[in-house]
Amino acid sequence: MIKDKLKRDIDFIIELDKMKSILRQNSLIDGSRKENDAEHSWHIAVMAMVLHEYSNLPIDLCKVIKMLLIHDLVEIYAGDTFCYDEEGNETKEERELKAADKLFNMLDEDKGKELRSLWAEFEERKTNEAIFAAAMDRLQPLFSNYYNEGGTWKKFNVNKEAVYKRIEPIKEASDEIWKLVTNMIEDAIRKGYIAN
Amino acid sequence: MIKDKLKRDIDFIIELDKMKSILRQNSLIDGSRKENDAEHSWHIAVMAMVLHEYSNLPIDLCKVIKMLLIHDLVEIYAGDTFCYDEEGNETKEERELKAADKLFNMLDEDKGKELRSLWAEFEERKTNEAIFAAAMDRLQPLFSNYYNEGGTWKKFNVNKEAVYKRIEPIKEASDEIWKLVTNMIEDAIRKGYIAN
Repeated sequence: MIKDKLKRDIDFIIELDKMKSILRQNSLIDGSRKENDAEHSWHIAVMAMVLHEYSNLPIDLCKVIKMLLIHDLVEIYAGDTFCYDEEGNETKEERELKAADKLFNMLDEDKGKELRSLWAEFEERKTNEAIFAAAMDRLQPLFSNYYNEGGTWKKFNVNKEAVYKRIEPIKEASDEIWKLVTNMIEDAIRKGYIAN
Repeated sequence: MIKDKLKRDIDFIIELDKMKSILRQNSLIDGSRKENDAEHSWHIAVMAMVLHEYSNLPIDLCKVIKMLLIHDLVEIYAGDTFCYDEEGNETKEERELKAADKLFNMLDEDKGKELRSLWAEFEERKTNEAIFAAAMDRLQPLFSNYYNEGGTWKKFNVNKEAVYKRIEPIKEASDEIWKLVTNMIEDAIRKGYIAN
């Protein structure tokens, strides 16, 4: 039976290659092309390794990293929903639940449940780990937009209020990082990257 | 002082964006383009989450994941060295040591040392974690070549002996995975993906 289980694991791993072709709205910092889900997930997992010391709350770093590595897997079937797309966000939950059924059922029951539960915890954003993970997820595109002369903020004419709403989890996660981020946003407004 | 430290952390995180532009020799499984270091690192970290139960030796999964996430960072300055490029591999160590000095010194001493030591452990391949991590690093391009009708094996006319030498860490890491992998390689030889 072990062999069958391993075969399912490998099929799952092969399916994950599709994450490298799911494009997000934001670009790489050098502006050369759009970022994909696999790269984004890698970047925020490493960010958690570097920034976990600034967490306001005690966190299990390992859990945060695992969560970040798999938080976007459902987009293999549900696609990336841009955070400022109101219409897309209305159907997001339903699409992603369906995708989670399909994806995590590729694995044997225990493993599928373990990964699905990490994903659900991230989505619910209630535990210390999920809050810190959400902060990393919001912080990375903020860097991308700031260092890319406005990026999606400018492209979609996003205003200050919407940006602050989007990055709220950072406030809860870390006073230190929040301070730095608010300075960046105020600077981005001055530079015309974010509408006032 | 905390502020300065955070600023250094952010500069490091921004620098890591370059991993998304460092191309490897192998392609995505769908053959659409070459894979980059960020995607590769993400994929093998998730693979460790899925496959750790097959390890022959007891491992600290969290350490394996961290190792895999940062194992290729030095390539930001040293570039990717193709595993079957003999000339490139002669200068690899020297180039990567220099790159490690430059990269990890961006961080404050404690954090830089922590990440550098994870990288060095991976390179030395002596601990259980480093062996399992190396197995994931070798397994992923094998999948890519196998499911991509030969990929770099065929392109560079790689023979059976070279492939088996390259994937040796998998043998040490997991009997289960090794069994599956040898079957794949024998099939790849039959299909003409690997020279006999």
